[in-house]
Amino acid sequence: MNKIFIHDQLIRFSHCDPAGIVYFPRFFDLAHGTMEDWFSQGLGQPLPDLIRDRRIGTPTVTIQCDFSKPLRMGDTLRFELRVLRAGNASVRLAYSGKKEGVEHLKLEQTIAFMALDAGSAVPIPEDLRPRIEEYLVG
Amino acid sequence: MNKIFIHDQLIRFSHCDPAGIVYFPRFFDLAHGTMEDWFSQGLGQPLPDLIRDRRIGTPTVTIQCDFSKPLRMGDTLRFELRVLRAGNASVRLAYSGKKEGVEHLKLEQTIAFMALDAGSAVPIPEDLRPRIEEYLVG
Amino acid sequence: MNKIFIHDQLIRFSHCDPAGIVYFPRFFDLAHGTMEDWFSQGLGQPLPDLIRDRRIGTPTVTIQCDFSKPLRMGDTLRFELRVLRAGNASVRLAYSGKKEGVEHLKLEQTIAFMALDAGSAVPIPEDLRPRIEEYLVG
Amino acid sequence: MNKIFIHDQLIRFSHCDPAGIVYFPRFFDLAHGTMEDWFSQGLGQPLPDLIRDRRIGTPTVTIQCDFSKPLRMGDTLRFELRVLRAGNASVRLAYSGKKEGVEHLKLEQTIAFMALDAGSAVPIPEDLRPRIEEYLVG
Repeated sequence: MNKIFIHDQLIRFSHCDPAGIVYFPRFFDLAHGTMEDWFSQGLGQPLPDLIRDRRIGTPTVTIQCDFSKPLRMGDTLRFELRVLRAGNASVRLAYSGKKEGVEHLKLEQTIAFMALDAGSAVPIPEDLRPRIEEYLVG
Repeated sequence: MNKIFIHDQLIRFSHCDPAGIVYFPRFFDLAHGTMEDWFSQGLGQPLPDLIRDRRIGTPTVTIQCDFSKPLRMGDTLRFELRVLRAGNASVRLAYSGKKEGVEHLKLEQTIAFMALDAGSAVPIPEDLRPRIEEYLVG
Repeated sequence: MNKIFIHDQLIRFSHCDPAGIVYFPRFFDLAHGTMEDWFSQGLGQPLPDLIRDRRIGTPTVTIQCDFSKPLRMGDTLRFELRVLRAGNASVRLAYSGKKEGVEHLKLEQTIAFMALDAGSAVPIPEDLRPRIEEYLVG
Repeated sequence: MNKIFIHDQLIRFSHCDPAGIVYFPRFFDLAHGTMEDWFSQGLGQPLPDLIRDRRIGTPTVTIQCDFSKPLRMGDTLRFELRVLRAGNASVRLAYSGKKEGVEHLKLEQTIAFMALDAGSAVPIPEDLRPRIEEYLVG
């Protein structure tokens, strides 16, 4: 269905460095916030419940980010989240980070599904797979 | 000369998430700490002075990280820093993150040199170039 | 007028520690976010503009916090912000941090107004004083 | 015996805000780092082991901080840690934060000992009490 999850976040004082722009590791925090809200609002499975009740975590296996333009305190960062691939036990996500319609950064992240008590990978839960696939890119 | 900059950091409580392992965005903070100490101890040019006195910043243009094994509170993370490429105005760095000799994560980062007041890229400062190139991979 | 500024924030994964509860320094980040939104929405003076255009900062001079109950990922933290005192160059703020109507933490913070270029205290700007005083406690 | 635990930490880029000085919530992270090293080096009981093996945590109950002078990137922050009071289930700590012998901030923190599985306060472990009391102020 090619859904896109849209998520806005305000760039705060605490995100910015002595040069007055977002300190780049904070973008991964912001992307994680987008992913959390995608789980709860987009997939209908809040991450805290997944972790606490189902004992499944979603560690990041690989991440890549290109920063083309800086962001500053007071800017609104819009992340557009899409799914690039839904594997057996992992999902590859793409985030386009925009300010007023212009892309400032691009991020790709692979998360795995992991049984927290066993510490081993598990298949994407069957109830989540179809909901995740709604966000698959064309 | 194929120098390697070795840097040890203790994994602290504040780096870890509810699963008890390092929350991945903190690794970029830790890598930035390694880069800061490389500038001061490896290159003899402390980053605070570069920023304040010479008005040159080193924003990250692109970053990529593969996480193969988790780290926990109390572990010591050793980063081995090497230079993959020294371009005109940018440097590509590789970090191998190890615990007790075993690689847990791998990171590649391109930083640019930027005139902070003009907001534009500048060539690698001539006094720094030879010192940076000492860390070039064979 | 005894106004209260009400501000809700979601407790995220990144706020929580290996015990699964908010790592206490994060509460100061969250309180700072409340203060930022109070400046923009409550006082009509966004902090980024105060800093960038008027070159006035609001450093914290003293802070005190009592933590009575923990908060967990997925909780909504409501801060109620009041002004305890508006001095010549400083403002004392009180934050009551609640979850579902029950207080979990209490915070008091004194901020000063500072001319960023001179590095010295300045009186509360005259246009802001009456708006700040609207939030004065009884 | 009036011991003092001395702990030096470098102020890094990531600690600083757009005004170029340490963003105050980071001082609580830095103080936590001092407390962690006091547990491992001063008390001989690493906090990770206390949490994981003995299932005892040390949540902060109350904290208070006065900031008199700012710190900047590249500064070395020395914390001097003393024990103000060792109660039944809690300890009150004082941190004096200095740069080159001059106090820049002062912090007081009460931590409780808590059984993590029961979620309830426990007395200071008997093996730790005498070691903690060595740091009691005169």
